Amino acid sequence: MDDRKVLTNHVLRMTDTLLKAGVKAAVISPGSRSTPLAYAFAASEELQTYMQVDERSAGYFALGLAKATGNPVALLCTSGTAASNYHPAITEAFYARVPLIVLTADRPHELRGVGAPQAIDQLNMYGKHVKFSVDLPLAEENEELDWFLERHVNRAVSIAMTKPSGPIHLNIPLREPLLIDFEMKAPQSTFIERISGEIELSTEQKDTFQTIFENTRNGLIIAGELPVGFDKNRFWEFAQKLQWPVLCDPLSNLRAEVSEENSGLCIAHYDALLKSEKFAEGAVPDTVIRFGAQPVSKPLSLFLKKVRPKVFIAVDESPEFRDSLGVVTHHLQASPESVFDIHSQGVSKAYTAMWAAANDLAEKATHQYEGLPGDEGIIVKTLFEMIPGGSDLFCGSSMPIRDVDTFFSKTDKDIAIFSNRGTNGIDGVVSTAFGLQAARKRPTYLLIGDLSFLHDVNGLIVSRFHEMSLTIILLNNDGGGIFSYLPQSTVSNHFEELFGTPTGLTFEHIGAMYDTQYAAVYSVEAFIEEFQKEKTKLVRIIEVFTSRPVNVKAHRAYWADLVERLDGNE
Amino acid sequence: MDDRKVLTNHVLRMTDTLLKAGVKAAVISPGSRSTPLAYAFAASEELQTYMQVDERSAGYFALGLAKATGNPVALLCTSGTAASNYHPAITEAFYARVPLIVLTADRPHELRGVGAPQAIDQLNMYGKHVKFSVDLPLAEENEELDWFLERHVNRAVSIAMTKPSGPIHLNIPLREPLLIDFEMKAPQSTFIERISGEIELSTEQKDTFQTIFENTRNGLIIAGELPVGFDKNRFWEFAQKLQWPVLCDPLSNLRAEVSEENSGLCIAHYDALLKSEKFAEGAVPDTVIRFGAQPVSKPLSLFLKKVRPKVFIAVDESPEFRDSLGVVTHHLQASPESVFDIHSQGVSKAYTAMWAAANDLAEKATHQYEGLPGDEGIIVKTLFEMIPGGSDLFCGSSMPIRDVDTFFSKTDKDIAIFSNRGTNGIDGVVSTAFGLQAARKRPTYLLIGDLSFLHDVNGLIVSRFHEMSLTIILLNNDGGGIFSYLPQSTVSNHFEELFGTPTGLTFEHIGAMYDTQYAAVYSVEAFIEEFQKEKTKLVRIIEVFTSRPVNVKAHRAYWADLVERLDGNE
Repeated sequence: MDDRKVLTNHVLRMTDTLLKAGVKAAVISPGSRSTPLAYAFAASEELQTYMQVDERSAGYFALGLAKATGNPVALLCTSGTAASNYHPAITEAFYARVPLIVLTADRPHELRGVGAPQAIDQLNMYGKHVKFSVDLPLAEENEELDWFLERHVNRAVSIAMTKPSGPIHLNIPLREPLLIDFEMKAPQSTFIERISGEIELSTEQKDTFQTIFENTRNGLIIAGELPVGFDKNRFWEFAQKLQWPVLCDPLSNLRAEVSEENSGLCIAHYDALLKSEKFAEGAVPDTVIRFGAQPVSKPLSLFLKKVRPKVFIAVDESPEFRDSLGVVTHHLQASPESVFDIHSQGVSKAYTAMWAAANDLAEKATHQYEGLPGDEGIIVKTLFEMIPGGSDLFCGSSMPIRDVDTFFSKTDKDIAIFSNRGTNGIDGVVSTAFGLQAARKRPTYLLIGDLSFLHDVNGLIVSRFHEMSLTIILLNNDGGGIFSYLPQSTVSNHFEELFGTPTGLTFEHIGAMYDTQYAAVYSVEAFIEEFQKEKTKLVRIIEVFTSRPVNVKAHRAYWADLVERLDGNE
Repeated sequence: MDDRKVLTNHVLRMTDTLLKAGVKAAVISPGSRSTPLAYAFAASEELQTYMQVDERSAGYFALGLAKATGNPVALLCTSGTAASNYHPAITEAFYARVPLIVLTADRPHELRGVGAPQAIDQLNMYGKHVKFSVDLPLAEENEELDWFLERHVNRAVSIAMTKPSGPIHLNIPLREPLLIDFEMKAPQSTFIERISGEIELSTEQKDTFQTIFENTRNGLIIAGELPVGFDKNRFWEFAQKLQWPVLCDPLSNLRAEVSEENSGLCIAHYDALLKSEKFAEGAVPDTVIRFGAQPVSKPLSLFLKKVRPKVFIAVDESPEFRDSLGVVTHHLQASPESVFDIHSQGVSKAYTAMWAAANDLAEKATHQYEGLPGDEGIIVKTLFEMIPGGSDLFCGSSMPIRDVDTFFSKTDKDIAIFSNRGTNGIDGVVSTAFGLQAARKRPTYLLIGDLSFLHDVNGLIVSRFHEMSLTIILLNNDGGGIFSYLPQSTVSNHFEELFGTPTGLTFEHIGAMYDTQYAAVYSVEAFIEEFQKEKTKLVRIIEVFTSRPVNVKAHRAYWADLVERLDGNE
């Protein structure tokens, strides 16, 4: 076989194995060294390919695709700093447990470490932020190598998909000439089917926890961000049997599609409720069982850290205890489904009733909340009221997800909420939202602050190559909103310079550049009016101008009002 | 001492040591965990601080500052993906040998690996792309630790500055509360002065090369990108003694400020000349001595690889042979100055005269070049004619630097040319140009393509926080221009989709968003007119609309014409 045929077989074999292993989509950035694989990907009828020029945004776009589906998604770039640009998305994927298949083209050995252009040391370049990293061999006419390649690419995907899932890195040296033979078909290949069971608890183990549950007076379920495919129905059955209140982080997606039956158990407003010392004192649980990550709520974290429940069970398939508060007493390393099998009936109804009543009161307060002009809370509350069922909402990692936590009550509407909370970066948010929408194909809203939007403004580039639909609610408070809530804001020295960081930028220009449906709004009334207008373009930006100081003032007033109602009530 | 005082001493001590070790500037991105150091930096009167919200761009801005001066420049960010965003600039800094002092704030031990928010594994996270990486201790009242900290921060800068210089990484855990005492002054501290000699050749070693030079009939000097502080005068004295032609890469900056005396030796057009097989045959050298990196010219690389000169000496202080062509025979590990001491007189004048005559002919052809409508070469040639002395020109790493190589003849004007050719990435270019200008404070021009500009459009953010001056000549050929010159362009399959990647974007919107002086031009005449207009705003964008296919056609016609003149001439 001539060199071109050998190279073609090599990349078709890889592509074929990726497909068989469950990779259905690939995000490609332009470059020369990656040409043979890019050709093979583009030529494949089964693989959905996306183009994004900025590799950093490409990484987050792939993250969104994979986060939405739980399926492995491939990323492909050329050698050099292109690969370094993937690092932020890979970091987020590692901590958010998202299976990215990172493919970096590389120079062959003879061009490494010799001062050749666009050649960097790509081996293990993502360090501990990937689950697996390997330097693949060059194309060669060699049956044993074919066999190895098929297994090794498959092996990498298998590792990525094993829970907790996460990114893996294949470094792929390719030698010039980089052209392939488009007439060739994928070569015959072998494939290992992976059949994976789940981590199940033994009867004895279950019995132990059944006893704990039965001996619990005040029990609490906490649900943080949950993995794709989490069985909500079985979860609610489990909660119904226990009759324990369920504190639902917005990312648990248990606040949505709440049935009448489950409504009494579903607590959405614990973040605000726990600001009342009086309420918190009466709310101390004996036993807590947590599914998913620790919720975003800081008051909840402080509460748990303070009261240190006698029993705190974290359900998690990973061996690494997620316990930043130092409160976990039992790490239940098993699939959630296995835990749902623990049959137990709750005892105390009073504790549950107390949470439910307080939540009702908070829900009413939220419903009545009128905010102040320039406040973001009122926008988020209004969004909650207006967002149609069957939609997805992607939230910025800093203030937006916290505002959603505060102002999104439980609902019977089907609203799925997402955020990049693996590492809470403000980067890559626009791209992740586009990726999510591309995979789930539902109407999608992005709630994002101005700094975060600016950081990943290049996320919009993907909309130049593909039909991408998104409604962006851009809260422009001209700078970093979260810092106004932190101790730094009490010190006047260098505050605006280091934390406020007002850029003075507005985004109608970006709206025009990317041919979006753009509107600037300055009040909640204008926001409502604009939101209800028809969507006439694929990408829509509603830029809401808000004020950082007003925001803090309005939020604090809301919390104070709620605490007053709550403390008066009891 | 209370905790706040201990923390304040800790960060003031670090800042003080950085200053003493020669760090004069720091680029900060907003974040919470980095607060104490950000305060200390901002409060320092001696340290020049810059703010950039996008850490990727911040990294490249710092790279530009350090590249311009050779001085170490600090980068400071919070924990999490903020740190991952530095990776591209760090990669470029490592290969371009630029001393970046990367400071990543981190959580203390008790919040690492426990699922805490915004906590990633930052230890050694840049792998082999930093020269040194260390996890510093937390603030503590402990004299021995103070002593260690002073030495270790200093030690890190010492490593960064030792040739070949490069980035280092200090990971800095900080525990809450993160506020410092602004009344405190820097504590008493100790400091090791670093006095570094240069690598000198022995008399015996020099004699060996003197003999080689004396026995050379056709000798050639090649000058690639040279380090800051390279002694041009002594270099030209050395070349004058040898009387060998000097092939000057644009990044050697030896094409500028060329005296009448040196003009006969200065060869700028070798890239075009070596496209003539006939010329190349007569131009084979016996001995080559190269200073700096291998030049950007592909024809030169192919020529050297083909003819394999009997002696090829690379002068380089690094132990790692920069020899991607496999042609180096002697790696002269010494300072360039030490090599300039080798006294030798050239023998053959004919060889030198031949190069000079050919270069004159190419210079004339370039001068007469008229291009085609939509061609970029004619824009670059015109830029060469118009750019005023005392200016800097920063070039995109892909086509712009190649066009400058082709169309910038030697000149007596003082034009300094720069590019990110450590790894040739198209990323971070806008930021690096701003950093360069901020450090050198000369009128600065950025020649850049549309994809590269788009990739680092966030580089402009720094202009919202500081008075930044730059004239951007944006060649918009709607996509990746370089691919039209590569073999991929001969294959129609997927070309525009994978390589051309036209975004259809234009940049007047960015011009308006960042309050720049913007103009769109569609011809070389309009470009000349626009270029000659007064600069009325700090940042100016001249967007020149060009065509990828015309571009290739015009370049090929230029080369064909030159080869014809050359072959007819001899």
